[in-house]
Amino acid sequence: MSRDALVTDLYQLTMLAAYHELGMHEPASFELFARHLPRQRGFLLIAGLETVLDFLADLRFEASELDWLAGTGQFRPGFLDWLAGFRFRGEVLAVPEGTALFADEPWLRITASLPEAQLVESRLMNLMHFQTLVATKAARCVLAARGRRLVDFGLRRAHGAEAAVLAARASYLAGFAGTATVEAGRRFGIPVFGTMAHSFVQAHDSEAEAFAGYARAHPGRANLLIDTYDVEAAARETVALSKQGVPVRGVRIDSGDLGDLARRVRGILDEGGCGGTDIIASGNVDESAIERLVSEDAPIDAFGIGTRLDTSADAPYLDCAYKLEEYAGRPRRKRSAGKATWPGRKQVWRSLDSSGRIARDLVALDGEPAEGQPLLRPVMKGGRRTGEPESLEAVRERAAATLASLPAKARRLDAPEPPIAVISAGIRSAAARIDREHPIA
Amino acid sequence: MSRDALVTDLYQLTMLAAYHELGMHEPASFELFARHLPRQRGFLLIAGLETVLDFLADLRFEASELDWLAGTGQFRPGFLDWLAGFRFRGEVLAVPEGTALFADEPWLRITASLPEAQLVESRLMNLMHFQTLVATKAARCVLAARGRRLVDFGLRRAHGAEAAVLAARASYLAGFAGTATVEAGRRFGIPVFGTMAHSFVQAHDSEAEAFAGYARAHPGRANLLIDTYDVEAAARETVALSKQGVPVRGVRIDSGDLGDLARRVRGILDEGGCGGTDIIASGNVDESAIERLVSEDAPIDAFGIGTRLDTSADAPYLDCAYKLEEYAGRPRRKRSAGKATWPGRKQVWRSLDSSGRIARDLVALDGEPAEGQPLLRPVMKGGRRTGEPESLEAVRERAAATLASLPAKARRLDAPEPPIAVISAGIRSAAARIDREHPIA
Repeated sequence: MSRDALVTDLYQLTMLAAYHELGMHEPASFELFARHLPRQRGFLLIAGLETVLDFLADLRFEASELDWLAGTGQFRPGFLDWLAGFRFRGEVLAVPEGTALFADEPWLRITASLPEAQLVESRLMNLMHFQTLVATKAARCVLAARGRRLVDFGLRRAHGAEAAVLAARASYLAGFAGTATVEAGRRFGIPVFGTMAHSFVQAHDSEAEAFAGYARAHPGRANLLIDTYDVEAAARETVALSKQGVPVRGVRIDSGDLGDLARRVRGILDEGGCGGTDIIASGNVDESAIERLVSEDAPIDAFGIGTRLDTSADAPYLDCAYKLEEYAGRPRRKRSAGKATWPGRKQVWRSLDSSGRIARDLVALDGEPAEGQPLLRPVMKGGRRTGEPESLEAVRERAAATLASLPAKARRLDAPEPPIAVISAGIRSAAARIDREHPIA
Repeated sequence: MSRDALVTDLYQLTMLAAYHELGMHEPASFELFARHLPRQRGFLLIAGLETVLDFLADLRFEASELDWLAGTGQFRPGFLDWLAGFRFRGEVLAVPEGTALFADEPWLRITASLPEAQLVESRLMNLMHFQTLVATKAARCVLAARGRRLVDFGLRRAHGAEAAVLAARASYLAGFAGTATVEAGRRFGIPVFGTMAHSFVQAHDSEAEAFAGYARAHPGRANLLIDTYDVEAAARETVALSKQGVPVRGVRIDSGDLGDLARRVRGILDEGGCGGTDIIASGNVDESAIERLVSEDAPIDAFGIGTRLDTSADAPYLDCAYKLEEYAGRPRRKRSAGKATWPGRKQVWRSLDSSGRIARDLVALDGEPAEGQPLLRPVMKGGRRTGEPESLEAVRERAAATLASLPAKARRLDAPEPPIAVISAGIRSAAARIDREHPIA
């Protein structure tokens, strides 16, 4: 989206107008965290930070946007003049992308003047919520696949174009081999894969003719779709093509009993001298289907995962929140029914056991003594990045390491149990102090 | 997204390269339809056509995109030269936005040279699938709300910025009063609404001070969030403010038992002379919560519906498909296990009963004699719109009429039963003929 400044909730602008009028420009710290994990998730694989930093660095209101706001009649001219000079000049601490986190652990902390820290909420959450959602779903697929290649096929049922492109990014950093979405290749350098559609086969008078035409147009690269009519007949046509000297890189099965069909097809291909031709399975695939097919040793080399990945179909949203933790030097706390927050600026300290698995996460106040590795690091100061953008390859390596460090209970697909972070004594006593000073009737 | 041409699956481009090489440029007809409705849906409210027509009219490959494609080494120069001149010059028939449809009924038909009709698949589905998904979810909320106002609050957990903006559009055309997403107001002229966040209250030393500051900055327009600490105390603060001559338009409750709290707050407001102050409810609201609160007569004037609307949380995708139905004058049919399609270019004929409810939908071949009103209309010829873009207001009126025409079984929220379209004799005999001519072993 080119016009990110208006990709915001109206209340951010009406609150800013009030902050401006009231002269409330003191430093505020907000943290983004998950209140709870979805029942089907044992961890969250945090993703989206690089896109958030781009958003923060580029944030400004264009003249046409200010004109539009003026036309609503809801804002005073002095405020709009001030918005014209608005830039994000704050500080960001964050866990690096590809880190696993659990409930109550901050993903990121923004410290900036109150209006700056407030305004960025909507788009910041929009970017990180979705990428973390999909990276987590993708990571579960990666764990289930035990080394088999996974490719994102989700564009057509992703929720818009940005969702498709960011889902490709999130699944790649979680360990996918690549995506079918071309724009994600262009924008992020992610490897792009493709096969063919049923329409290609249907448009020809015979399947054999369709296969020959496609394979000759893409010598050595062709992946043929073999389930338009009869899968085994199509596998035999693939063998025949190869015997004519036209090599086929892979075949895709998109319907039916994928395990059973893959075994039959593997037999036909191997017998016909096509041992090097891969079998790709797709069609309503998710991590449970992958786990089942892998556990029965189905001869599937790669999975194409579409709709259920890009929509995170079994858990299409996360209960995350961006909350004010400190303003003008004082810790703050929300106490709404069922949605109370822990106050203060926090750090997450992670301790591993001797086998490299996560032994304990501690959430403590900034500056409170603690053991372990601190996960939040400074990534932006004065509105500028503190270092170069991280490469997706570096993030992939971190994600692989973080997945390997998860306790078995958090990794398992069915009824996973996420570790519970320890909340420090400092945070608990700060919360108690606020409650004492401002008792709820 | 500015670069729509690469918002596509790689296989569209590899198929196009083969079509180009094989000289396959004859006219093809593809149709987009739902194979099945999700279990929780009794109808689909079709949306997204105007954005699809914009996409088709503007589709072209920029030089930088062609350079990127050349750099992949997967495409021959002659093909890329041809892509440089690629435009969509085809014909589109479609049901107007805001029409309710059921399984097996085409939403839209594209007739164009095979490469044109093929390439547009991915983005076309991406646009219409999502908008129809959200319009349908929104329509269920509208049916449940029985006249209460509904506002889209979903930006932060929508799947990206485009999803947020298109969800605002889809819910507005389904009958919502507006959205909190500012960019949707700017782009589509949708009314934009807002309240305040908990952080605004927390940043002040007292809630009363926060309310006063906000209400004075937005005289006559302020909606106050009253659940940061204690809802009833906050309602009394609202009354006090109004007694000081500072009017409050509405109060929002975002947690707890919304019905019970609304009754208590209504009592406090009415007793304090604030009978004109609205109560807005939000927080995990969906159509079931609305139906429950409306049926118990909770004094709620408006609902803010966020995450569950923008992600269509209980059914986050539709089983829709874009399939080749005819090529070079001959009907085509896919026969994959569980995914067979009806061949030929089709029209949907709708008959209403004397009370204006849908009595029968018939899907017939183009030109086959049929009764009722034809739902698909020409909207694009030679790559140009046949008329002016429809206003969202006109679509809203159509949506209201179509919802009123639904049978009660399709309208109900729990275990709805969608009508089943009759498939004409002409389509059935065309399918049988194809199966006879190309028997599956």
